[in-house]
Amino acid sequence: MLTPDWLKQYKKEQLNGDIIAGVIVAVVLVPQAMAYGMLAGLPPETALYSSVLPLILYAAFGSSRTLAVGPVGLMSLMTGATLIELDINDPTLMVSAAHTLALLTGGILLLMRLAKLGSIINYLSHPVISGFVSASAIIIAISQLKHLFGLDIPRGLPSYEVLFLLASNLQNLNIATTTIGITSLLILYGFKEPLGRLLKQTSCSDLCIQITSKVGPLFAVSASTLAVYYLNLSDEQQVSIIGHIPAGLPTIIIPSTDTLLIKSLFPSAIIIALIGYLESVSIAKSMASQKRQKIDSNKELVGLGTANIASAISGGYPVAGGFGRSMVNFTSGANTPLASIISALLVAITLASLTSLFFFLPKAALAAIIITAVISLIDAHTLKHAWRYDRADASSMLITFITVLLINVETGIFAGIIMSIGLYLHRSSQPHIAIVGQLGNTEHYRNIKRFEVTTQPNILALRIDENLYFANTNYLEDNIMQLVADNKKIDHIVLICSSISFIDSSALESLDNILYRLQQARIKLHLAEVKGPVMDKLKTTEFINKVGLSNIYISTHQAVQTLTKQHPL
Amino acid sequence: MLTPDWLKQYKKEQLNGDIIAGVIVAVVLVPQAMAYGMLAGLPPETALYSSVLPLILYAAFGSSRTLAVGPVGLMSLMTGATLIELDINDPTLMVSAAHTLALLTGGILLLMRLAKLGSIINYLSHPVISGFVSASAIIIAISQLKHLFGLDIPRGLPSYEVLFLLASNLQNLNIATTTIGITSLLILYGFKEPLGRLLKQTSCSDLCIQITSKVGPLFAVSASTLAVYYLNLSDEQQVSIIGHIPAGLPTIIIPSTDTLLIKSLFPSAIIIALIGYLESVSIAKSMASQKRQKIDSNKELVGLGTANIASAISGGYPVAGGFGRSMVNFTSGANTPLASIISALLVAITLASLTSLFFFLPKAALAAIIITAVISLIDAHTLKHAWRYDRADASSMLITFITVLLINVETGIFAGIIMSIGLYLHRSSQPHIAIVGQLGNTEHYRNIKRFEVTTQPNILALRIDENLYFANTNYLEDNIMQLVADNKKIDHIVLICSSISFIDSSALESLDNILYRLQQARIKLHLAEVKGPVMDKLKTTEFINKVGLSNIYISTHQAVQTLTKQHPL
Repeated sequence: MLTPDWLKQYKKEQLNGDIIAGVIVAVVLVPQAMAYGMLAGLPPETALYSSVLPLILYAAFGSSRTLAVGPVGLMSLMTGATLIELDINDPTLMVSAAHTLALLTGGILLLMRLAKLGSIINYLSHPVISGFVSASAIIIAISQLKHLFGLDIPRGLPSYEVLFLLASNLQNLNIATTTIGITSLLILYGFKEPLGRLLKQTSCSDLCIQITSKVGPLFAVSASTLAVYYLNLSDEQQVSIIGHIPAGLPTIIIPSTDTLLIKSLFPSAIIIALIGYLESVSIAKSMASQKRQKIDSNKELVGLGTANIASAISGGYPVAGGFGRSMVNFTSGANTPLASIISALLVAITLASLTSLFFFLPKAALAAIIITAVISLIDAHTLKHAWRYDRADASSMLITFITVLLINVETGIFAGIIMSIGLYLHRSSQPHIAIVGQLGNTEHYRNIKRFEVTTQPNILALRIDENLYFANTNYLEDNIMQLVADNKKIDHIVLICSSISFIDSSALESLDNILYRLQQARIKLHLAEVKGPVMDKLKTTEFINKVGLSNIYISTHQAVQTLTKQHPL
Repeated sequence: MLTPDWLKQYKKEQLNGDIIAGVIVAVVLVPQAMAYGMLAGLPPETALYSSVLPLILYAAFGSSRTLAVGPVGLMSLMTGATLIELDINDPTLMVSAAHTLALLTGGILLLMRLAKLGSIINYLSHPVISGFVSASAIIIAISQLKHLFGLDIPRGLPSYEVLFLLASNLQNLNIATTTIGITSLLILYGFKEPLGRLLKQTSCSDLCIQITSKVGPLFAVSASTLAVYYLNLSDEQQVSIIGHIPAGLPTIIIPSTDTLLIKSLFPSAIIIALIGYLESVSIAKSMASQKRQKIDSNKELVGLGTANIASAISGGYPVAGGFGRSMVNFTSGANTPLASIISALLVAITLASLTSLFFFLPKAALAAIIITAVISLIDAHTLKHAWRYDRADASSMLITFITVLLINVETGIFAGIIMSIGLYLHRSSQPHIAIVGQLGNTEHYRNIKRFEVTTQPNILALRIDENLYFANTNYLEDNIMQLVADNKKIDHIVLICSSISFIDSSALESLDNILYRLQQARIKLHLAEVKGPVMDKLKTTEFINKVGLSNIYISTHQAVQTLTKQHPL
């Protein structure tokens, strides 16, 4: 049997935390799922269906104990953008395409597992992720303003156009809707910050504060629904409401595998899979490290892959681990994935018997939930920090941010990756080269420009601060020869290889050239501090014989000592 | 006045070498140019026009003293491939498109100069270049077989298809043509190798041997032309000949700047410009280093850029520095670009008065010249070498080679670049991490797996052999925490930063995480041998305060000494 580890080792004392966390997450999840469904342009039941089976599958196969899987903001945004490009008018076909997208996403994640491509996300740098998340949060928030103000603006437009249309239609806003929207925002904010602080001053226990602060969405949903129902706002004031949600549990369906549909969904599915995986793993890791648990990126691929396939065959759309709900789960005391299973069961109960309660739920309240959830993802801190610490990182971040905002998510991420890799290569193509000297009476050698060091006039000890590879061979050759030209007195060059972890064959050829050119100038080349793996490879080459094994020293100190003794001044 | 340096400093004793080299290069250049024109699918006069003005412009603006500019194999191959894709049937329009291509190539090179993009070629690794050159040489050689055997095979087919058509049409080969072709090959080979060796045994001077060995092409051309003329082979045996070449010097024309034409030529022009630049600079550098001269890559861009524009406006096609002729120029004693100017004048004289001599020149002889010139570029040695030294380099080379051969030059180079950069990133994403200990009584610390070293049970000294950046932060974090888990006794971790030349902001965040996780495990983090530039940046961060300046040591030895004294066992 494939019983997951956490179940085999389940302890009684974990149960309490799991039940409480499971209930709280369910309370947050139901309104949030409907809100994210709206963001994706899908009916609320599709999002609720995505909140049952996927959670159970992830609990069975995933490696994180507290990751809360289900509909999330970014995935919903990207799903919405992908579906709108299909230009489908029939809502049933649209929902069916969403199932297929989830199937593809799951399939891609499982394929990545088979191809051992989990480490691919390492090439997404933090600045690129941060720029992408911030821009997406802004796009999501802007996309919800029309619901907040009750304005009719078509979906799928770029954000600047949406803003322009909003501004030019502001006189048409629906007053009742706007009142509900703004009130919901205030309620959500109130539950988040001031209420928690207030409760802390009372005798309320931590758990009680915890629970109270999380029920904001439920309260906003209930209050606004009651307001619409009793004040008859949906009829008289034309406040947009959720309307009928079919009651009943998700049923198993077979998603369409139409070749044309798959072809047009495939590129987006790759990005959705990567982003979902990336988001989930980073959340899972940050929680796991706080509890000394381990995240296995291979298991994550399987967990998320099966969760998405489960979503596809139970009438849902692509899912991932969400930041907000995972934090709720974690801080509410979830110990094992049993908490997620409890959440899933509660959503199932809601679907089976409570959907009619949501009939009068105004869309403006859901928009307020989304806006509150994403606004905290806008991350100016990282930009400020990156700008101060490393301009290259800050540029990658800005490029990603601007491209995501003005063009789209895919192009933005691609531009960010290219930029961050390009800047890294550019940096390593112009390595720092330091002339070093002996530090006091130690055996340690440091840069003559930064430390008070002793040097020998006829020995040039050079430390090259980079691996030697094709992109920096020309730079290296030019700079060494320039240093030789500038230091007429030298008879010996000691190349200190402490920073060189590999030498590729282009660089080997270049070293051969340098050796030849130094020989022509009657200068002897020596190597010091060559690392084991580098030496292993050099030993197979002709170059090392030309240098001579006796000219290779274990340390810079040994090299300088030996050469000074050989040629006393 | 913009007098070039070499002209200002011209010395009388340089003249002799320049004249001899200039004459010899002209003798090689005339038949070679016509052959390359044939390779590009252009009339011989177009190639000869490319051999006058461009040489003079390069002499004025380039930085190499001995680079022989003009029509070359690779550029001709790529020009031919580009022009055939335009699907132009009218030969006049084809030639006109070749002028536009040269104009674009020159413009791109000058723009690269303005944008200071000269260093972009650093990203082409030697294995990629070698794979590309070898594959191109094979494609060129195969493309000439039809001329060698007098078979009629359409242009622009992939090499494997050409080979197939050749094999299935072998029964139709033209016996006279084949005889001329094979004989020419034998003559060219004879002049190259056995004749030189033979002359060395005689009293012939070095210069005499030099000159004799270079006149192979002229001899092959003359002998085959005379054979065709006297034996009437072009009529009776239908041997393909060059035919009429209009007499007269190139005239100044304005190349077509039709938008559609430019649009379709532009992508190829970029590759042609890059390859031309790359080929020229590498040849120029290898010659310059032998004479202690310097190549200025900016000047090279201007020199080649103006040479191509000169080619465009004087009825030519894209040009670059050629390997073979540059070697001839260099070894024949050229001292300054005056040699090239002399070659250009001799080509001009040929154009003005000797073109009728080439009427009966058989194409098979030109094919033999091309095949002999390119066959020496096939470079199995580098592959063998790379395979032994570095499998990653060998794979990049093979991928480039196969892709160029089976698809085309552009795709091949692109695949090679992506592969070599990808492999480099992959390598640096999994840095070597060594646990080190004290080597004897020295202050030097080396890998415990490779050296007999002393370690302290409660101190883990780790040397990380790579810059810390986004692609390896996860690997680093996982590995350090694994080492901590495996070494229960440790109280201190010393991170030896001797190989770390920069830490990007993703890695900084990761270090912060590591610090936090170590603190939770009651392990103290120390840094040693942090380089100046890295320390400068770290000083601006919160991280360095969390580590504590007193926990940062100048050397590993100092760190271990201090910690041992603090906690004697």
